[in-house]
Amino acid sequence: MNRIITIGREFGSGGRELGRRLAEALHIEYYDKQIIEELAKHTELSKKYFQEVTQGQPHHLFPIRIGRSFHYMKNHPLEQSHAVFQVQSGIMKEMAEKSDCVIIGRCAEFVLEDHAPFRIFTYANMESKVARCKEKGSEHEHFSDKEMQQHIKAVDAQRSKYYALYTSAVWGEKAHYDLLINTSGRSIKDIAKKLADTI
Amino acid sequence: MNRIITIGREFGSGGRELGRRLAEALHIEYYDKQIIEELAKHTELSKKYFQEVTQGQPHHLFPIRIGRSFHYMKNHPLEQSHAVFQVQSGIMKEMAEKSDCVIIGRCAEFVLEDHAPFRIFTYANMESKVARCKEKGSEHEHFSDKEMQQHIKAVDAQRSKYYALYTSAVWGEKAHYDLLINTSGRSIKDIAKKLADTI
Repeated sequence: MNRIITIGREFGSGGRELGRRLAEALHIEYYDKQIIEELAKHTELSKKYFQEVTQGQPHHLFPIRIGRSFHYMKNHPLEQSHAVFQVQSGIMKEMAEKSDCVIIGRCAEFVLEDHAPFRIFTYANMESKVARCKEKGSEHEHFSDKEMQQHIKAVDAQRSKYYALYTSAVWGEKAHYDLLINTSGRSIKDIAKKLADTI
Repeated sequence: MNRIITIGREFGSGGRELGRRLAEALHIEYYDKQIIEELAKHTELSKKYFQEVTQGQPHHLFPIRIGRSFHYMKNHPLEQSHAVFQVQSGIMKEMAEKSDCVIIGRCAEFVLEDHAPFRIFTYANMESKVARCKEKGSEHEHFSDKEMQQHIKAVDAQRSKYYALYTSAVWGEKAHYDLLINTSGRSIKDIAKKLADTI
């Protein structure tokens, strides 16, 4: 069975960076929300992509130019969201069967339960999340601290809702994970290095 | 500032064993509930003990024969519990100022907040906790699985109540810890080794 690492994360807690660094350090595939969405939207592309993925020879980074991301729970009827979730779940299972990989978000720890993934969740205090979001220079870098806090809360509320809808479980509740890491004031590079050494 | 590691733990999740192994691997002091209680009950003994603890030269194991442990929240008026907690907190601060150490339970992560401890919490699923309790051959090893489950739930409920009383916080809530480790089906020896390598 392939080695699958899933990462759930609070917005701004560095989970995506941790996943990317882990995948690089372990020389395994890396998939995040945008990649999974792109693959799910373009069946032909995803077929071609999976044909190219060969166990033990990871692609360095996903080759597709990422455009505007596709928002669930917003302007989409529930039925369509469910259908999208089904397609994405299928894509994730294909990923897990194809090779070792790190998968960020998308309820992957539930979808891939049969693959016994190592399930990580990253979180941090608000101060640290605001600082990390500002450092990263995202599209919201002009936000005041207060606006950034509101944005972080809104994104996390959406993640929590999405998780509850598809898993009937509480997002970030420790029982669903193997390791929960508080990244407040810590270097993700350093955490990734330590984790890669121990996994 | 000394390196302080605190471990909160669900009953049967192996937190005490993890702490003991970590302390051994890192060559630092180890304190658990019973040791702290004994020291708190015997002022003269604790003075002598702390005189003997020298930074960088840990005692191998606590030298006192441990008798029946002292139950809070049970047959003790609240005022007395509070007084005991104060004495124990003083003892823990003395420990933290004296040398690097691992401290199990006793709300240590709150009491020693100023020492910026590395705060671990261990937990596990019920099946795994029952199995671990039976393996350890405790005084309850003759319990049926159902009795053991009830015992585990009762002890954890007591810990949760104790924690809420002295910290006004939720026991096991991830915000209060740096790392939460799910020990279900895992070897504590193995976890301790990996942790000791990375801390």
